[in-house]
Amino acid sequence: KRIAVLPGDGIGTEVAEGAMKVLETVASRFGHQFEFAFGKIGGQAIDSKGTPLPDETINLCKESDAVLLGAVGGPKWDKMPPELRPEKGLLGIRKELGLFANLRPVTAFDSLISSSPLKKEVVQDVDLLIVRELTGGIYFGKPSGRKGENRETAVDTLQYERHEIERIVEKAFTFARMRNKKLTSVDKANVLESSRMWREVVDEAAAKNPDIEVEHMLVDAAAMKLISNPKAFDVIVTENMFGDILSDEASMITGSLGMLPSASMRSDGYGLYEPVHGSAPDIAGKNMANPLAMILSSAMMLKYSFGMKEEAEAVEKAVTEVLDAGYRTMDLGSNSSCTLSTEKMIKQVV
Amino acid sequence: KRIAVLPGDGIGTEVAEGAMKVLETVASRFGHQFEFAFGKIGGQAIDSKGTPLPDETINLCKESDAVLLGAVGGPKWDKMPPELRPEKGLLGIRKELGLFANLRPVTAFDSLISSSPLKKEVVQDVDLLIVRELTGGIYFGKPSGRKGENRETAVDTLQYERHEIERIVEKAFTFARMRNKKLTSVDKANVLESSRMWREVVDEAAAKNPDIEVEHMLVDAAAMKLISNPKAFDVIVTENMFGDILSDEASMITGSLGMLPSASMRSDGYGLYEPVHGSAPDIAGKNMANPLAMILSSAMMLKYSFGMKEEAEAVEKAVTEVLDAGYRTMDLGSNSSCTLSTEKMIKQVV
Ligand SMILES: CC(C)[C@H](C(=O)O)[C@@H](O)C(=O)O
Ligand SMILES: CC(C)[C@H](C(=O)O)[C@@H](O)C(=O)O
Repeated sequence: KRIAVLPGDGIGTEVAEGAMKVLETVASRFGHQFEFAFGKIGGQAIDSKGTPLPDETINLCKESDAVLLGAVGGPKWDKMPPELRPEKGLLGIRKELGLFANLRPVTAFDSLISSSPLKKEVVQDVDLLIVRELTGGIYFGKPSGRKGENRETAVDTLQYERHEIERIVEKAFTFARMRNKKLTSVDKANVLESSRMWREVVDEAAAKNPDIEVEHMLVDAAAMKLISNPKAFDVIVTENMFGDILSDEASMITGSLGMLPSASMRSDGYGLYEPVHGSAPDIAGKNMANPLAMILSSAMMLKYSFGMKEEAEAVEKAVTEVLDAGYRTMDLGSNSSCTLSTEKMIKQVV
Repeated sequence: KRIAVLPGDGIGTEVAEGAMKVLETVASRFGHQFEFAFGKIGGQAIDSKGTPLPDETINLCKESDAVLLGAVGGPKWDKMPPELRPEKGLLGIRKELGLFANLRPVTAFDSLISSSPLKKEVVQDVDLLIVRELTGGIYFGKPSGRKGENRETAVDTLQYERHEIERIVEKAFTFARMRNKKLTSVDKANVLESSRMWREVVDEAAAKNPDIEVEHMLVDAAAMKLISNPKAFDVIVTENMFGDILSDEASMITGSLGMLPSASMRSDGYGLYEPVHGSAPDIAGKNMANPLAMILSSAMMLKYSFGMKEEAEAVEKAVTEVLDAGYRTMDLGSNSSCTLSTEKMIKQVV
């Protein structure tokens, strides 16, 4: 398998290193071959190529079987004009590669529960998956701009085509079937036309998938329930902007942002895998970053893009065991007896 | 002062009763005169007038100095077509009365901290105010509808005029000045044009109000921080849809939805005051509802619409004392030694 590796900015390089080392171990243990091909994205690409997403990076990804991405962004590029911001690289690559399904699992690790801002009884056993539509909605709708004599009007457009909703909803049903067979569709059908179409599509799919328990929830109610009773969720499916907000909200439930992986996929199994955390410029290059979210992202790649379930579980098990043994990176609580550097943490997992 | 009272559906009537009793006590104690005039809204209005917001209700409100609203909605009206849903009454009255500023304070009551899903150290001393734009944005933008041969495209429009942003931002600065002088403006400026205009307006206002500390935060980051460190906020200002989501998220911080008041105002001080909780059809008519959110909403009315600061504080103090004395309604924890009915709770506050 050929894997495009885009380390990006800040701690991206350090954590990407972790994923590669773990994947090499998997390869030799299970008899696979992984080839890594490197590309630039984000600030790194702006500095050397003048654009956050160079064509050669897109081509590299298209010629690979999956993509690993570290992180993008940093204060250095914060003052750039909108088209030249590192985030444009992210939005661009999603659109260019057709990655319409963003998967964000949130799982409570028993040994880390005390890091959560939520009470133990609220967070224990949380195991949910947010499926966010990633290439449509208000992120890409036109018109989007300013008008009026003095540019006094600003407009954005939330637009969805039925087929865009159908394919993400279908994905969500598939994941619900692989998990606990419960699907919560989140919308704002009491206000938005796009949400009313969303609800129609979900209802049609529900009729065709009677083995899955389906509920509709308004986005404001979902934002509440993610805090008051996150255990109540199995799979959540929602449109792009709601998914952006809810998945970041959900990422705080466990209190360990450094543990959360993500996948952005299309229908054929091709996907881009990246940690939920950012580029953390304050600790970049200091051998302090937590590589586990990136490592768990590579486990998602093994499972979803390569169909290597056993291999993925081996990686996940290694991470759990390392935590259970008391090893921690700085971000997971510095009063632990075994605080490891990035490199040492990678070694433990390997 | 003439106060329009719209009890609405479910527990609305019971809690509105509480606000009126408390206001009568305030009137006699401080030598004021309050006249209550009753109107219908929501399901109650649909049943008797065929519309969730009859003209006579709008007129009644326009002829009054402020409005108290109980709650609207219930399963009885859930299957109605969109235009005939109780919520349309809410959206309609906001627009008709020009109530562009929604205020949602979230305050942790020491005696109720254990009800929070968050850890004590996270929730203790939380005291924030969300200022939500209420009559613009994607809630009202046109076009909003379906198109295409088979209605396969759905569109909603997020539109803001500069002056709509200016007036809500100005309100937010005023409140920040009355509080801890810190303002967080929430947007999604890395994606939305309307957010970029929003940010421009906030920056201009910040330059004119150097006594207020201003920060910008992306909506996804704000959704995270509300959980991980809600104490970091003083005043939050944001557009309609983000405000809907974030204020409901914030309402879970304290774990006592039955305690949260809200105000929806315009520039001249006129406002509509309602509890954050819904109509709770399951306990309606059972003398079990918590009237404190409605009572605290009437305290906001005294302060913001009538300029009666001392009177408002007397009401707030009464509520705190009743809680400190151990009195609770069912929703605040049934293992308390002093569980009171709605009526008895009202009496305690009076
Ligand atoms: C950087 C930004 C444009 C992006 C988004 O909003 O999609 C990010 O928040 C994310 O969730 O990956
Ligand atoms: C009922 C609904 C239309 C309304 C809104 O979204 O504004 C409600 O959620 C609120 O926040 O008052």
